[in-house]
Amino acid sequence: MRFSVKVPASSANLGSGFDTLAVALSLYTTVIVEPADDGYVFDGGPDLAGGENLIEQGMQLAAEAVGLALPHCRVSVSSDIPVARGLGSSATALIAGLLAGNHLLGDQLSRQQIFELATGIEGHGDNVSASLFGGVTLSLICPDRVICRQIPLGGALQVVLFVPDAFGLTADARAVVPLTVPRQDAVANLGRCALLLMALVQGDFPLLCEAMQDTLHQPYRCALFPHVGPMIESAVEHGAFGACLSGAGPSILAFVDPERAARVAEALNDEARSRAVAGAAIVLDIVMEGATITHTV
Amino acid sequence: MRFSVKVPASSANLGSGFDTLAVALSLYTTVIVEPADDGYVFDGGPDLAGGENLIEQGMQLAAEAVGLALPHCRVSVSSDIPVARGLGSSATALIAGLLAGNHLLGDQLSRQQIFELATGIEGHGDNVSASLFGGVTLSLICPDRVICRQIPLGGALQVVLFVPDAFGLTADARAVVPLTVPRQDAVANLGRCALLLMALVQGDFPLLCEAMQDTLHQPYRCALFPHVGPMIESAVEHGAFGACLSGAGPSILAFVDPERAARVAEALNDEARSRAVAGAAIVLDIVMEGATITHTV
Repeated sequence: MRFSVKVPASSANLGSGFDTLAVALSLYTTVIVEPADDGYVFDGGPDLAGGENLIEQGMQLAAEAVGLALPHCRVSVSSDIPVARGLGSSATALIAGLLAGNHLLGDQLSRQQIFELATGIEGHGDNVSASLFGGVTLSLICPDRVICRQIPLGGALQVVLFVPDAFGLTADARAVVPLTVPRQDAVANLGRCALLLMALVQGDFPLLCEAMQDTLHQPYRCALFPHVGPMIESAVEHGAFGACLSGAGPSILAFVDPERAARVAEALNDEARSRAVAGAAIVLDIVMEGATITHTV
Repeated sequence: MRFSVKVPASSANLGSGFDTLAVALSLYTTVIVEPADDGYVFDGGPDLAGGENLIEQGMQLAAEAVGLALPHCRVSVSSDIPVARGLGSSATALIAGLLAGNHLLGDQLSRQQIFELATGIEGHGDNVSASLFGGVTLSLICPDRVICRQIPLGGALQVVLFVPDAFGLTADARAVVPLTVPRQDAVANLGRCALLLMALVQGDFPLLCEAMQDTLHQPYRCALFPHVGPMIESAVEHGAFGACLSGAGPSILAFVDPERAARVAEALNDEARSRAVAGAAIVLDIVMEGATITHTV
């Protein structure tokens, strides 16, 4: 059997939904799995996770979970997701590996079980939930279980993503977020995250600008990436509903009316150029389907 | 002209939605306004706000906002809302006064403007939003505006409320909530509040038990009211979807399937009796309409 697993990129947080919300985007990691004569052959592909092979780790994890050994296979990878830019590329590799391993062994694990295994490795569920289930997702780690729900969207929405050429490393960006926060910041984020959900569900997108404001992580991370604050402002001034840091950065995500996508992309490129930040804006769709497995001849 | 203003009680927070969510309940403050020969005559009624006359304050505030003087009138009040129990009785008085004053002067203020005036006095928008707009509400105070959205409910839900005979004072209950909180508590509440909204919107009520868990205020307030923790557990054990402290307490709110309301009420009464807590459980509807003005002959 020869099959491919296609896993969308994701952008976590969406401003106020710190470690909770994420959206699946139309950039993909694709893994092709083919029978091989002996052993496990990994066939090149980009460095998806800073040196670790999360695809193989995912496959082994799935095999352990079902208590079987992986058959001999050849795995090849391609991806158009920029790495270390806050687009969840490592989550796509992990999900691709889990789904490939599970599929090789008869699809015994449910998507919820795959989600639990992935969350256990990642430590939070935001990127993996969007890559696995698609759309805008809400994920939550509880003492006895992990929960994910897809948020239905009440209207047409696209994403403009500005991806700087320079890397950002999640570990650095997480270390700057303080361990305690003022109660009033916690309450403000609570309300804004709730408003963000209602804006998405009811298609009341002009609320997004207010709803995506964050006080828990973005102000600290923006200090690492001084281009971010002005570029978010520029996106909104040029017609984006709202904008935020993508994941732990340094990319910037803007939600837009599809008709305004080109204008917002141009504004982000102009603003970046004026600040001597190398990079490019791209227009992406929100992927509602999540990771897919396709049999190929 | 003779008219009455009927304002529903409310329960704020709903567990994880600290200072953000609230629900309007079928207990009411009713204010009847009649022409009078001279001055302002206040005709008895319960002490709704610990001595302050919030009804008159609301009427004056509305008059100031439209720049007119109130006509001579007689105001009489009745209410079946227990005071100082976490049921927003003072918010009902304020809203009743604002609506009465506005109506006497030709209804020049919109509901949004009434909401802004009430929020300015209360300092937060949770109780006033539910009493004014009805249903489950999300409210948010932003630097330049206050926002309220009603959350549509995806199924039939009732409330069982246990009201202790003993008072609780909001000021005391607020003072125990710390001014800084661990980041992980802020993130946990963020996710649970978002889950609470999705559970309500999608009618996925079994999620409420997890979604109503709180780490920002309830653990601290429960230390003031030792009956609360065990009674919340008892409500859930006996079939409630979820339960929490009502506002700043000491009442307890449980969301229930209407068919289980009587059983949950009985369980709460039994648990209270076993702990020598005087009080009674009542079954209430969620009021979707908010405050109403009716002309009477």
